[in-house]
Amino acid sequence: MDHNPSPIPEPHAKRNPNSNPVPTPTATPPDILRCAYMDIVVTDLAASREFYVDILGLVVTEENENEIYLRSFEEFIHHNLVLRKGPVAAVAAFSYRVRSPEDLDRAVEFYTELGCRVERRAEGFTKGIGDSVRVEDPLGFPYEFFHDVEHVERLAWRYDLYGPGALVRLDHFNQVTPDVPRARGYMEDLGFRVTEDIQDEDGVTYAAWMRRKSTVHDTAMTGGNGPRMHHVAFATHEKHNILYICDKLGALRKSDLIERGPGRHGVSNAFYLYLLDPDGHRVEIYTQDYYTGDPDNPVVTWDVHDNQRRDWWGNPVVPSWYTEASPVLDLDGNVQPIVVREEPSEMAVTVGADGFSYTREGDVEKGFKLGDTL
Amino acid sequence: MDHNPSPIPEPHAKRNPNSNPVPTPTATPPDILRCAYMDIVVTDLAASREFYVDILGLVVTEENENEIYLRSFEEFIHHNLVLRKGPVAAVAAFSYRVRSPEDLDRAVEFYTELGCRVERRAEGFTKGIGDSVRVEDPLGFPYEFFHDVEHVERLAWRYDLYGPGALVRLDHFNQVTPDVPRARGYMEDLGFRVTEDIQDEDGVTYAAWMRRKSTVHDTAMTGGNGPRMHHVAFATHEKHNILYICDKLGALRKSDLIERGPGRHGVSNAFYLYLLDPDGHRVEIYTQDYYTGDPDNPVVTWDVHDNQRRDWWGNPVVPSWYTEASPVLDLDGNVQPIVVREEPSEMAVTVGADGFSYTREGDVEKGFKLGDTL
Amino acid sequence: MDHNPSPIPEPHAKRNPNSNPVPTPTATPPDILRCAYMDIVVTDLAASREFYVDILGLVVTEENENEIYLRSFEEFIHHNLVLRKGPVAAVAAFSYRVRSPEDLDRAVEFYTELGCRVERRAEGFTKGIGDSVRVEDPLGFPYEFFHDVEHVERLAWRYDLYGPGALVRLDHFNQVTPDVPRARGYMEDLGFRVTEDIQDEDGVTYAAWMRRKSTVHDTAMTGGNGPRMHHVAFATHEKHNILYICDKLGALRKSDLIERGPGRHGVSNAFYLYLLDPDGHRVEIYTQDYYTGDPDNPVVTWDVHDNQRRDWWGNPVVPSWYTEASPVLDLDGNVQPIVVREEPSEMAVTVGADGFSYTREGDVEKGFKLGDTL
Amino acid sequence: MDHNPSPIPEPHAKRNPNSNPVPTPTATPPDILRCAYMDIVVTDLAASREFYVDILGLVVTEENENEIYLRSFEEFIHHNLVLRKGPVAAVAAFSYRVRSPEDLDRAVEFYTELGCRVERRAEGFTKGIGDSVRVEDPLGFPYEFFHDVEHVERLAWRYDLYGPGALVRLDHFNQVTPDVPRARGYMEDLGFRVTEDIQDEDGVTYAAWMRRKSTVHDTAMTGGNGPRMHHVAFATHEKHNILYICDKLGALRKSDLIERGPGRHGVSNAFYLYLLDPDGHRVEIYTQDYYTGDPDNPVVTWDVHDNQRRDWWGNPVVPSWYTEASPVLDLDGNVQPIVVREEPSEMAVTVGADGFSYTREGDVEKGFKLGDTL
Repeated sequence: MDHNPSPIPEPHAKRNPNSNPVPTPTATPPDILRCAYMDIVVTDLAASREFYVDILGLVVTEENENEIYLRSFEEFIHHNLVLRKGPVAAVAAFSYRVRSPEDLDRAVEFYTELGCRVERRAEGFTKGIGDSVRVEDPLGFPYEFFHDVEHVERLAWRYDLYGPGALVRLDHFNQVTPDVPRARGYMEDLGFRVTEDIQDEDGVTYAAWMRRKSTVHDTAMTGGNGPRMHHVAFATHEKHNILYICDKLGALRKSDLIERGPGRHGVSNAFYLYLLDPDGHRVEIYTQDYYTGDPDNPVVTWDVHDNQRRDWWGNPVVPSWYTEASPVLDLDGNVQPIVVREEPSEMAVTVGADGFSYTREGDVEKGFKLGDTL
Repeated sequence: MDHNPSPIPEPHAKRNPNSNPVPTPTATPPDILRCAYMDIVVTDLAASREFYVDILGLVVTEENENEIYLRSFEEFIHHNLVLRKGPVAAVAAFSYRVRSPEDLDRAVEFYTELGCRVERRAEGFTKGIGDSVRVEDPLGFPYEFFHDVEHVERLAWRYDLYGPGALVRLDHFNQVTPDVPRARGYMEDLGFRVTEDIQDEDGVTYAAWMRRKSTVHDTAMTGGNGPRMHHVAFATHEKHNILYICDKLGALRKSDLIERGPGRHGVSNAFYLYLLDPDGHRVEIYTQDYYTGDPDNPVVTWDVHDNQRRDWWGNPVVPSWYTEASPVLDLDGNVQPIVVREEPSEMAVTVGADGFSYTREGDVEKGFKLGDTL
Repeated sequence: MDHNPSPIPEPHAKRNPNSNPVPTPTATPPDILRCAYMDIVVTDLAASREFYVDILGLVVTEENENEIYLRSFEEFIHHNLVLRKGPVAAVAAFSYRVRSPEDLDRAVEFYTELGCRVERRAEGFTKGIGDSVRVEDPLGFPYEFFHDVEHVERLAWRYDLYGPGALVRLDHFNQVTPDVPRARGYMEDLGFRVTEDIQDEDGVTYAAWMRRKSTVHDTAMTGGNGPRMHHVAFATHEKHNILYICDKLGALRKSDLIERGPGRHGVSNAFYLYLLDPDGHRVEIYTQDYYTGDPDNPVVTWDVHDNQRRDWWGNPVVPSWYTEASPVLDLDGNVQPIVVREEPSEMAVTVGADGFSYTREGDVEKGFKLGDTL
Repeated sequence: MDHNPSPIPEPHAKRNPNSNPVPTPTATPPDILRCAYMDIVVTDLAASREFYVDILGLVVTEENENEIYLRSFEEFIHHNLVLRKGPVAAVAAFSYRVRSPEDLDRAVEFYTELGCRVERRAEGFTKGIGDSVRVEDPLGFPYEFFHDVEHVERLAWRYDLYGPGALVRLDHFNQVTPDVPRARGYMEDLGFRVTEDIQDEDGVTYAAWMRRKSTVHDTAMTGGNGPRMHHVAFATHEKHNILYICDKLGALRKSDLIERGPGRHGVSNAFYLYLLDPDGHRVEIYTQDYYTGDPDNPVVTWDVHDNQRRDWWGNPVVPSWYTEASPVLDLDGNVQPIVVREEPSEMAVTVGADGFSYTREGDVEKGFKLGDTL
C-alpha cells in the first residue's frame, strides 16, 4: 500500500549507544505483575481530596488526617494512590505488585547487586500492604515492590456508586529520565518489555513505553531532566467518560486544570486527557490501548518528527507538558537532585524555529498543524 | 448558589447602538422552517468529493461532472449541500426552506421593500428543488428560499450504510458580518430569534446565534470582516461519531484538515469539531445542543472575556478560526466585496497582549489557560 | 432497490372507517408548543421520590409533604413531572404548553364547542404555573394547557450535577385509547400531525405517533382499553446513558423495574428502555429520534406484522407492555371508566397462536424470533 | 453494608465431588498465552463470508475457495478465525498460542501422559501458522497449541478501515461439557485459573470461567451435553459498537440472527450480544470485563438462582442459548459423540415450573422478571 498511514511495526530497535549502562545483575529479577499504586506527597490534603475524590471520583478505602488511600472501581487491592500530607509536592514511591512473597527476596538481591539503597519493612510502608521493599533505583526513582496486600471490595458491579467519569483501573506510570536507552536497558533487566518508542533519524530515543501486564505500559520513560514523575494514569471504560471529566471541570470553573487534551494518542492508540492536581502533579485519564502480552508483540517505533505520534489528530502538545514534572523523593524523604538531559529535547526538535514536524512523511509543501495555525 | 458556574440566562439583551439599521419592512416575512442546504463553489470537484463523500460519508443523491448533490442520513429532501465546480471557492447560496409556496411571495415582497436584488425561478436554481427565490440580502449574503422539493429516501433506518462518523442532519450555517447588532435586527425582522450571544462590558456584541427550528441556531452571526461564510455544520448522533472522524483523518494522514477541536462549546453546549475542506471552506461537526422552541426561551449572554464561552474546557481557539472565512457570491456569481469590522475583534480582546480572558470571573490570580501554558 | 430494508414512507394513510368521529370544532385550536409535564398521583411519595430522584436523577425544583416538582437538566420551566400523593395511582393531567396567553381562550372555546367539561384557574393547578385550562377531552383524558410559567435555572451546563444516566428533556406522552383513528382525527383537529403509525392489511390502525414540536411525537395513541396512560418519556443525550440506568438498577437489585428493553425502536428509530415506577406507572427513557418539523414530513406506516416495528432488533415485546397501563382521572379526581377496544389487539395479531409476524416480508420459511426461540 | 448488591468474592470454591477426575499429569503443562483462533467448518462458505466479513467486518488476511482466514483489528498474528468449507458445521480446533516453541514439546508430553491422541505438524494445520500440536483432549475437544506464526499488519490505527461495529480482539471461547468440576480440574492442571463460576446451594457447578491472559476468560466451561462449542467471542472497544451491530442486522432484515441480548452480564461484568452465524455457530460480541492477572484475583461465585447472574438487568435467557451448541470434530474430522449431562441443567433449575430465580436474595414476595411478565 503506497500511502499506508499506520505506524510500521519495526524489528526491536537497537539500543542507542549508551556510554554509561546500568550493569545487568546476575540475580534473577522479581516477577512483577503490574504497576499497583503511587505514593505522592501533597501540600494541602483537603485540596487534593477535593480533586481526587470529589472531582475525579476515586474511592476512599481509608483516610486519616495525614493520608488518604484511594482506589479505582475495578480494584481489589487496598489502594492505587496514596495522598500523603507533606511539605514538598513530590513522589514517595512508584509501587509494583510482584507475583509471590519470594519475589521480595529477589528484589532485595537484584538491587543490592546494583549497589542501590534498599529498605525492607515486614509491616509495609503504607496501610493495607504487608512486607515491602523500597529502593532508590539506578535512575534515582523510589521504586517499591510488594505482594501481601489487604483485599477490599471490588466495586466493578457497584454502578450505583459510579459517576459519569468513573476511573476503573490504575493504568500506568510515566517517568522523566535524562538517558532513555540507559533506562530502557535497566528496565529490560528488571523484566519489562518495550512496546513502543519515539526515535529520530540519528537513533536518539526520546521516550519508550514498557510493560509487565498485557497493556502498552506499566511505566514509560520520557527523556528529560530527571528523575521526575511525569504522570500517573487511570483508565475509564469509554471515551465519553473522559469527555465528561472535561465537562465537569468546566461546570466547576476549573477548566484550567486541563493541561492537554482530550485527544487520541498516536503512541498506544489510546484516548487521553491530562489534568494537573492542586500541587501540579500530572494525572492522565486514559482508555483503550491494545493487548501486548505475546513475547513477540511488535514494537512500534515512531519518528519524532511525525506530528501524529503524540496526538493522532495533530493537535499541538503544550510546552508545559514537555517541561514540567514532579520531583521524586529518596528513602529519607528528601528530593532527589535533577540530572540534565544531554541529548536533544523532543520539544526542541519538533516545535518552533529549531524543530520541524510533518503530517505526511516526505510532504514538503505542508508543515504540521501548529505551524499553519498559530 | 454562590459558586454557580453556569451561564446566567439574561433578559433579552438591548441591541447595541446601531447607527445604520436595516429598516424593518412592513411586509410579512416568509415563514422559514429551517436552514436546508448550502450551495458552495469548489475548485476541484474530485478533491471535494473525496472530502465530503469518501471521508465524511455524506450521501450522494445525484451528481454530474459539474455538481454533486449531497444529503445527510435523516434527510428526506433532495440535498443539504451542493458542490459546484467553479473558478473561485465561495458560497453561492444559504438556502432556507419555507412553510408554504405562498411564503415565496412574502420573501419577494420583504426583500423588494428592502431594496434588495431579488431573483425568482419557477424551476429552481438547483436540481431537485422547484420554485425558488434568491436575494442579495442587506448584509450582502446570497439567501435562498424555497418550498417545493423532491422527496428522497430518508436513510435514517439504513444502518447498513452508516459509517462510524455518520452525519445525520444539516444543523446550521454561520456567517461573518461586520456589525452584529445590525445583522441581528434584520434577522429578527425576518423572523429569527436569538438564543445566545457574546458581548462585552461596553455592550459590544461579538456574535449572536439565531434560530427558526427548535435548536440553538439555524444560523449565527459572527463579528468580522464580511460578508463571508464562517462554516456550515452537520450533526452526528453522538460524540464518539465526531471523535471517529478525527481518528479517520489521522489514519488517512490528513489530520491537518482538523482546524479546531474536538471540544465542548460553552455557547450552545454542543460538542464540536471544525474541519477545513480542500478549498478551505470550514465545516463543523456538531452534536447535542438543546431545545429552544418556546417563545420565552432564555437568551444566554456570555462575557467575551469568559474563557469557557467558545470552549467549555478552556482550550484555546486557533487564530485562523477567527480570521479565515469563505467569500460569498452575488447573484451574478461575482465575489461580494468585504466590509471591515470597526468594533473590536473577539480575538484581539481575548488573546495575547491586547486581550484578557478568565476562567473564574473576578479571579485575578490565575489567567486563562493559554497564558499559563504557551 | 430490491432488498430495501427500511420502512417505506407512505402517503398519508386514509383514516380507518370511523363510525363515531369527534366533530371538528369551528373554533381555532390553541397553538400548542410541546408536551410540558405530567401530573401523576402516587401512593407512596417516599418510594416515588427514591425512584425518580435517587435512581433516575430528576432534579427537584420544589417539594413538600404532598407533592414533588421535578424537572430535567435542560428544562427552564418549573417542572416536567409532578408527583402527587393520593389514594389511587393514576394520571391527573397531561399538560401542554401553548404559545401565548390567548391560546388559553382558544382552548376554552375549542373544548366548550366539543361539549367537554372545562375548568380554568388563573392561579394554575400546580405550583410554578399560572393561568391554566384543564379539560376532560373527548377521549376521556385530562388535558391541560398553560402558557405562564415560572422560569428556573436551565441546568444544561451543570455537568457537576449530572449523573451517568442524566435525563435532559421530557420527550413525550403515550396514551391508550380504544379507537385510534377516532383519536387521530380529534388530535389533528387540535393541531397535531401524525409522523408514524402501525396498520394492518385491512386498514386497522394499532397506534399512531403525533407531534407538535419537531420530534417524532409529543404524544402517541396506542390502541387498547382506555383512556389510560401508557407511559411518559424522558430523553438522555446518548445511548450509554440509558444502558447505565439498567446497570444501576442491577446494582441496586431492582432489575425487576426494567419491563422492556433496552432496544432500538423501529417506529421513531429511537433507542429506548421501559421502566415501571413503584406504582406501576411506566416511564420510557428515550434518545435519538429525528427532525419532523417540515409540513410534508413523510409519514411512515409500519405493517403490524413486521417484527421489527416495535423493536428493530426483533426482540419480543413482553405482554405486560401491551396490557398494562395507568388509569386517568377526571377533573374531580375520580378514575375515568374504561372503554374496551373492539378492534383486534396488536398483541393478539402478532404473538402466539392467533398472530404472526415476519422478519422479512414474504419470507414464509422463517417465522419471527420469538417463535424460533421460546 | 446491608444491601450490598454486588457479587461477594468467595474463597476459591471446593471442587464438587468428582467421581471420575482427569488425572493430573506429572509433565509440566505448556505455558499458554491466550486463546488465539478457532477453526470452524461451515457448510456454505459464501454465506459465512457475508456474515463474518460483510456484516461483522472481520478482516480477511487470506482466502481461497475452501478457506477464509480472518482477523480482528488489533491482531498481529495471521488469523483469529478460520472458516473451512465442509459437509458438517462443527469446530475443528480451539487453538491457543503458547509462549515458546518448547511449549509444544510440553503439550505433547502433557497430553501423551493423559493418554490422549496427539498429532504434531511442523508445517501447521492452517496457513500462516508453523509447528503445531493438535490433541483430542480428555473432554473430547480438539485443542491446538502453536507458537510460530506469521505476523501481519496490526490494523489498530487504520481507522479508515473500521466500521461502526469494529471487532478489535478475539476475546474467548466457550465450551459445553457435562461435568464442569471435572473439566475445571483438568483445565487447572493445564494452567488455567478460574475467575468466576455459577453454583447452587448443593455445590453443583453449572459453569466456570477460566483464564490465561489477564481477562475474565480465555475459555469457559458450560455444563451441558458435550463436548460442544457454545460460542466464540470477539471484543469491541465500546458498547455502542455492539448496539450498532444490532442496528445493522435490523437494516439488513436479519434481526433473527440476534439470539440473545444485547445486555450486561452479571458474570464478567461485560456488555454482550449473541448472534448465530448461517450454520448456527454462536458468536458473542463482548466488551469491558476487568483485569484478572493477579494470582489471588478474587473468584466470584454466583448463585444459580440469582436472576442477575446471566443478565445483570434480569432479562430472560432464551432457551436455545442453553440448549443449542455446535458439534466438535476429532482429529480425523469426525463429529465427537455427545455425553449427556447428569447433573441438573441451569435452565431447569431457574426457569419455569421446575426452577426458581430471585432478583433479591431472600425476597419471597417478588419472583424474577420472566415470571412476572410472560
